[in-house]
Parts: sequence; C-alpha cells; structure tokens
Amino acid sequence: MGSNFADRIHDEMQRRRTRLVVGLDPVWDSLPRSLREDAQSQTGIMETVSSEATVWALRAFCEDIIEATREIALAFKPQVAFFERFGSDGIEVLERILTEHQELLFIVDCKRGDIGSTSEAYAQAYFSHPAEPPAPLPCSAVTLNGYLGRDAIDPFLPYIRDDKGAFVLAKTSNPSSAEFQDRLLDGEPLYIRVARAVAEWGAECRGSGGFSSLGLVVGATFPEAARQVREAAPHSLILVPGIGVQGGKVEDAAAFTTAGGLGAIFNFSRGVIYAYKGEAYKQQFGERDWALAARAAAEDFRQALNDALD
Amino acid sequence: MGSNFADRIHDEMQRRRTRLVVGLDPVWDSLPRSLREDAQSQTGIMETVSSEATVWALRAFCEDIIEATREIALAFKPQVAFFERFGSDGIEVLERILTEHQELLFIVDCKRGDIGSTSEAYAQAYFSHPAEPPAPLPCSAVTLNGYLGRDAIDPFLPYIRDDKGAFVLAKTSNPSSAEFQDRLLDGEPLYIRVARAVAEWGAECRGSGGFSSLGLVVGATFPEAARQVREAAPHSLILVPGIGVQGGKVEDAAAFTTAGGLGAIFNFSRGVIYAYKGEAYKQQFGERDWALAARAAAEDFRQALNDALD
Repeated sequence: MGSNFADRIHDEMQRRRTRLVVGLDPVWDSLPRSLREDAQSQTGIMETVSSEATVWALRAFCEDIIEATREIALAFKPQVAFFERFGSDGIEVLERILTEHQELLFIVDCKRGDIGSTSEAYAQAYFSHPAEPPAPLPCSAVTLNGYLGRDAIDPFLPYIRDDKGAFVLAKTSNPSSAEFQDRLLDGEPLYIRVARAVAEWGAECRGSGGFSSLGLVVGATFPEAARQVREAAPHSLILVPGIGVQGGKVEDAAAFTTAGGLGAIFNFSRGVIYAYKGEAYKQQFGERDWALAARAAAEDFRQALNDALD
Repeated sequence: MGSNFADRIHDEMQRRRTRLVVGLDPVWDSLPRSLREDAQSQTGIMETVSSEATVWALRAFCEDIIEATREIALAFKPQVAFFERFGSDGIEVLERILTEHQELLFIVDCKRGDIGSTSEAYAQAYFSHPAEPPAPLPCSAVTLNGYLGRDAIDPFLPYIRDDKGAFVLAKTSNPSSAEFQDRLLDGEPLYIRVARAVAEWGAECRGSGGFSSLGLVVGATFPEAARQVREAAPHSLILVPGIGVQGGKVEDAAAFTTAGGLGAIFNFSRGVIYAYKGEAYKQQFGERDWALAARAAAEDFRQALNDALD
C-alpha cells in the first residue's frame, strides 16, 4: 500500500507551502528562440522545422522547466495532446520525463474516458500496482472525462484506493463549457450532478486528511460554480486550471478551497512556462533566461496563492 | 479539396455493399495462442510476457485482421487505448498501421475532448491538410467527446469541412451511460441535446449525399434512443458500436439509419477479431485459422446488416 494521493498532496502543500501546479504545454511556436535554434543545430536541421527538432526541443524545454521550478511546484501537469501531436516520438518524450522523475508528482492531463476493457487499458497505460510491471507512462494522477458514467472511472478506482489520484471534469474553464455542463437537470446544473456522483464514487478513496483522491476539475474562470461544487462535494480534491491567460483570478482562489485553504490545487501553464514573453518578466529576464523567468513567475504565483488562502 | 467523408462512406457502402466497421481492439490475453507463441519466439522471450512480444503481436494481429477482412469491411476502427497501454511502442504500432494503409478508411477511436490550443494539438495528431506535413497518426475520422462544448470540436472542423470525419459521443453503449446522458434537460435527455448541437455545428460539413461528416456515436444497445437521435439529427452520420458481446442486435439496425438504410455504420470488434473463440466459428476453424474465422464472421455480419437494412 502506498500512501493516499490526497494525503500526499496536502503533506507537500503544508511542508513546502505550495499549491502550485506547473502545466507542461510545450508548443514549438511558443518556445524560446534560443531553444528552437539549439534544437535545430542539435538535430542538424537548420532551415525548416522538423519533427525531430521539435521532439528534441519538447524534451529539453520540459526538462529545463522542471529543473527551474521543481522546488516551487507542488506537482507538474503535462498535457498529453502536446506530446501525442508528434505521435510515438512525442509520447516517448513524455514517457522519459515521467519515468525519470518518479520522485515528483505528475498529474497527466489526458481527459480519457471510455468503457470496460478499453477504460482498463487506459488505466494500465498510466497506473500500476506495486507487484505489476510498471506502467509505460507512470504518474501520480490523471484527469478523466465522466460523460460515459461510472464505467469510465471504475477501472481507475483500484489504483486510486491505493496511492494514485484522478480528477474528473466537472466544470471546465473554457467559454463553451456552459453549453452542456450548465444545463439544468431537476433544477441543478449538470456539473453539480457530476460532482455529486464523483464524490459518491470516491468516498472510499479518502485519506486520513478527509479528502478523496478521486477529485474534480473546476475551471478558475467560474468561482461561483466552484462554491456550489465545494458545497456538493466537500471532500473532493479540486484541480483548478485557467488562472492567467484564460481569465481566472488568484483573488478568487478561496472559492475552490475548504476553510483553511485546503482541498484545491491550482495549475498555471502559459503564465509560468512562457513567462519570458510576458510584460511582468521580460524586462528583468532576456529570452535566453526563459527558465529563470519561469522560476520567478512560479515563485510569484505560489506566493500570491498563499497570500490569498493562508 | 478531398472528397467529403460522409460521401466517401456512402459511396463505398453502396459500391461494396457493406456497412461493417471492424474494430481493432488487440488485447494480449485474447490473442490466438499460436500468435502469442510466434511473438515470444520472434522476440526471443519465451517464458514471460514481455512488452516487446506484446507489441510484436499487436502489430501482427492487426495486420492479419486487416488483410483477412479488408474486402468486407467498410472501415477499421482502432481503439487507441489498446495501443497507448504500451506507451510509445504501442503508439508506434498504430502509427505504422495507419501510415501504411492510407488507402483504407480508418476511424480512430480516441474519444478526445479538450479546449483551445490543446484540442488543436489533438486535431493535428490525427489530421492534416494536403499542404501540411502529414499527421503522425493519419486517419479518415476520429471519435470525440463533447462534454466541453463546441470548443472541443472547433479545431477539427476545418479538416472535417474538407475530407475528414468525426463522431461525437451522444448515447454510448455501456450500462452506466444513463447516468448523465439520459438526464432530462427541459424534458429532453442530454444525449438529444448533444445530438442537436452536433447537428448544428456540422451543418456546414454536409456532402452531396446530404449527410454531415461531423457525426454521432449511438450505442447499438439503445435502439429507442437511436430513433430519437435520428429524428433530432436526420443528417448526421451515426457510428454504432456495441452489437454482439455488449448486447446490441442486428435486428435493431434500422433504428439507426434513415429510410433506405443510409446514414449509419456498425462496428464489430470482439465478434469479428476473436471469432475463433466463439461457438459459431470454433467448430469450423481451428485456433490456427483465427484469421479465416474473423473473415467468415465479418462476412456473416456484413450480410446480416444488409439483410436487415436493404
């Protein structure tokens, strides 16, 4: 038996005073020019963007971000799409990052959701029990889509009852999330229905701190929804994406936590990893110092969250 | 401009008299013993199941199924989970299958659903425009999850307006699909709301035959739901999983089509690819002849669908 994921999250949160998740969303066009040039000279392809150069840059960028922010971040959230976009070569980069940093908490943002043996195969791609051969993409937690109901979640539960975690999409941060998620079912929005169901399924995954390792995703752009979710699912750990570029605000962070600032962790992707481009950091850090800019931004966000919540 | 996906589907359906999709769901424990033994001797690993042997078997199995059924199947539907389960090695197998058979129609069952640049990265993993570098996992269509609303679908639309297709989950075949999908919103189940929205988004993706290449998934286990979806979204192409092991019946096929038996294609996975295990075929075909059993089953299902629908 490993230790419960929600407990580990809160232990780290309190010991290292951080609620910050750093999102790894590597996109070639957004990478620092110096790194893109390095990638092109490393792979010997100078004129055009090659898949080989991109994959080299993907890895170097993620490794440098991890190195620069690992003391500040509570966890990292790689978005699988940015790796899958390069097929098996991209997945191999993710695989190496996850395999080589098993001391860190990784929440793989894959939003998988399927049924029966298919859902089981997804679970086995990311999770394994101690006695089993290791999963190819070993991580601490994943994100899941619950549209298919409990069948999509069930195969993950044996791992979550042990030491893994999952966050099921309730209310997402994007503008069109209202389209279905806000529709009223018996007077209650769908996202609340999802939150209640997930809370029930995850009741058996609660750690000694009282929080369940089967958690929810609630976008930072909807603090009012978060208050309702928090009430409907008081023991669910909440992963909060969407502060920064998407419009969510640190000042609203308390809507996502329980009293005492517990039960929620906050993801920053572009605001940290591409901080070197932003007004706040580009004066102080040149493009060559993009990793230092990321570190400074991570530290500022960590502090801002603590100021808002402690 | 390529030719519209829904048109291609119907052209092939009428020319080759087939509505059958063969699902590629390769699971080591279900593979024919002879193939597993071949895999172990090919890779030199005889005693235990190795990831290397599994990956070898995955590819050999899929290639043999494709060879045995390509004249009978209208399209193939690889389920990504069974490849992702083996990380980059598994994805490489899928990549090679898709790349080497671009003459065939492949519907990649990935059920992806994300937002903004993330959704765009998923689209670029599977689709490319003619002038762009080829996608690493090139295919004719994918399945999508619409829980996040239109943002999840939008980045796929430019490709679908051209020659690609997508099927958005409306009512899935699994028992717990009722959990959220059947909930009433203003007196209408969620899956109908999804079907109406998808029909609207896909209006601009209709081919000369009148069907839209942005289609829906409706499970064979729910013919009554299919009748409602067919009414709410008369121009949507419907992908129907779940006949056979999951309990759906060929006799209900007409619930999914428009008059004249158009607008729906039917997936068979285990019933075809593991036919050698089933009562109906194991007398006639020994385990060594598993590919012939798959071919016979595919032919029987093709014929049964035509009998029910023509």
